Amino acid sequence: MISVDLHTHILPRDWPDFSERFGYGRKRFIYPEHGHDDGHRCLRMMRGDSMFRRVWPNCYDPDVIVAECDENEIDVQVICTVPVMFSYWAKPEHGAEISRFLNDDIANVVAKRPKRFIGLGTVPMQDTDLAIKELRRCKEELNLPGVQIGSHVEPNAFTGRDYDLNLSDPKLRPFFEAAHDLDMSIFVHPWEMMGHDQMGKYWLPWLVGMPAETSRAICSMIFGGIFEQFPNLRVCFAHGGGSFPFTVGRIEHGFNCRPDLVAIDNRVNPREYLKKNSDEPARFWVDSIVHDPYSLRTLFGIFGSKRICMGSDYPFPLGEKPGELIRGNPKISGDSLDRLMCNNAMDFLGLSAKDYIQS
Amino acid sequence: MISVDLHTHILPRDWPDFSERFGYGRKRFIYPEHGHDDGHRCLRMMRGDSMFRRVWPNCYDPDVIVAECDENEIDVQVICTVPVMFSYWAKPEHGAEISRFLNDDIANVVAKRPKRFIGLGTVPMQDTDLAIKELRRCKEELNLPGVQIGSHVEPNAFTGRDYDLNLSDPKLRPFFEAAHDLDMSIFVHPWEMMGHDQMGKYWLPWLVGMPAETSRAICSMIFGGIFEQFPNLRVCFAHGGGSFPFTVGRIEHGFNCRPDLVAIDNRVNPREYLKKNSDEPARFWVDSIVHDPYSLRTLFGIFGSKRICMGSDYPFPLGEKPGELIRGNPKISGDSLDRLMCNNAMDFLGLSAKDYIQS
Repeated sequence: MISVDLHTHILPRDWPDFSERFGYGRKRFIYPEHGHDDGHRCLRMMRGDSMFRRVWPNCYDPDVIVAECDENEIDVQVICTVPVMFSYWAKPEHGAEISRFLNDDIANVVAKRPKRFIGLGTVPMQDTDLAIKELRRCKEELNLPGVQIGSHVEPNAFTGRDYDLNLSDPKLRPFFEAAHDLDMSIFVHPWEMMGHDQMGKYWLPWLVGMPAETSRAICSMIFGGIFEQFPNLRVCFAHGGGSFPFTVGRIEHGFNCRPDLVAIDNRVNPREYLKKNSDEPARFWVDSIVHDPYSLRTLFGIFGSKRICMGSDYPFPLGEKPGELIRGNPKISGDSLDRLMCNNAMDFLGLSAKDYIQS
Repeated sequence: MISVDLHTHILPRDWPDFSERFGYGRKRFIYPEHGHDDGHRCLRMMRGDSMFRRVWPNCYDPDVIVAECDENEIDVQVICTVPVMFSYWAKPEHGAEISRFLNDDIANVVAKRPKRFIGLGTVPMQDTDLAIKELRRCKEELNLPGVQIGSHVEPNAFTGRDYDLNLSDPKLRPFFEAAHDLDMSIFVHPWEMMGHDQMGKYWLPWLVGMPAETSRAICSMIFGGIFEQFPNLRVCFAHGGGSFPFTVGRIEHGFNCRPDLVAIDNRVNPREYLKKNSDEPARFWVDSIVHDPYSLRTLFGIFGSKRICMGSDYPFPLGEKPGELIRGNPKISGDSLDRLMCNNAMDFLGLSAKDYIQS
């Protein structure tokens, strides 16, 4: 059985300064600055004059990535962009152009090593029509099995929309319909974290805001009735579903006690979307990035062994050493191990492990 | 052994229209409007022309409350105000006056039934000096064992502070020092939820935002070093610690992998504040409101049986039937049952169950 890491991020080796290209006054788009820090090659992700984040070659050099995968005994990486590149705040046509650029790059990485990489695209969610157009291109031209989207779509000043779109928003419904019809998988990643500006210290937007964002996304998709409307849509949520798994009791109770507030668009109890028995696992997938054997056990109880996909958040420090939490767990073996390390990800992606067995 | 419900809310039977009294142009303070809805007495909590929430006599009539406690086999309720009454946004002197009003009312309810009620006060956290002054009054004049505070302190236009105070903020440190020195317990309740304005549907500020707020509060107190600085300070967090228990692996990993961001004020690993073994339970308390046996088991693993206090959020619909989750759990019996139903709350409050045994 091969090992698949469902949750990894990659950047192009280089990309244009989109702020310059599009004529944005302030340098709001991330642009790359290659350099040497601490004696090593690196890429500084710059926004204006400040560095958003420094990344190393394992974020943009496929040779280095494959070498590290070999070290970590990972056969296949599912790669997608870094969420700060989503650019949902930008003019729709510019969001679309950046998406095309990033998706072409990912498709190119996959084409050179089709046994080692699977690519997920990105789409300009600030414009549903353009998002669908790029989704279709990802499918038909680039042969990608799915896309990554954010946990919500932030306000967009250029379209005059001054409020967030949650994933339940009717404006986004045609996108989910298209993904369903095109058989494209959707990986939901937290970004533009709630409370970001109110939690300046201790990295709390990442440690507190991100898990909340993922729960927000799951609740929005459940209560918005998306899983009811599109029965074959395949969705996976990052970081073990964020804070959702532990708070599902509260969420279900809210649904039961205040249907006037919660059950307004979908009358199905949220618990119905979770594991019922070993044959009937949860309605959607989560990755395994919970950093804790105890929390992983909770995931098993809630989602079942068929809906948890090994992910690592490679190459970022907040991620895990790929596969470590699962392989190091003596209670996970046999079929369960195969599922978590490979089959569940393939099910989510609508692919077959047979096509990736190393020759 | 008596049964104690650590987390319940109460309002005065009546209170002034503080917006009128203080001369605020807009009616921003909640004011009461007594009426009959659905054929029953009720109190409409009004803000301006709109109803914030409708509550029934079991939120403001101690006779009704005690009768329901008897039905639920609850001997003692720990009562505190409803978080919307915190009014941390108001002018400090007005926040202090409202706090005094609410605290006098709670002390009065307790005085009439000292075997059935224990009161927690509220303090104007927008002004640390006034908060300490009221904290001292709660202790010395009203004989309350502690206070309830919010998960953060929102901006206050009247003092010119345009940013949130997290509980780690140095401005609040003298308050925690005073609570420590006065031996006053602190119950932390989520309020002014992050993402509130971005999650208009499905009650998500309560279902997603509240658990995130509590994690924000726990992380802020840990990473701010408050437990290190005040070793005897007793703190309890609402709703089973919100999203913290399930995401503690992520939080610890963030501390380990980015100490430059996380370990800047306290170098102690967050895991150190949790249960180490049955003799060494967690450093702080949580209530039991998780609505789910599976999540309750997770709480046991993380905090130990000596740090979980039965709470119900009575009388609100998002709460639990008091004691149901714990009493209905066949695995909780004997000493553990006594701890969860009584002793842990008494430990947190610095009180003795002996003083509450019914005659």
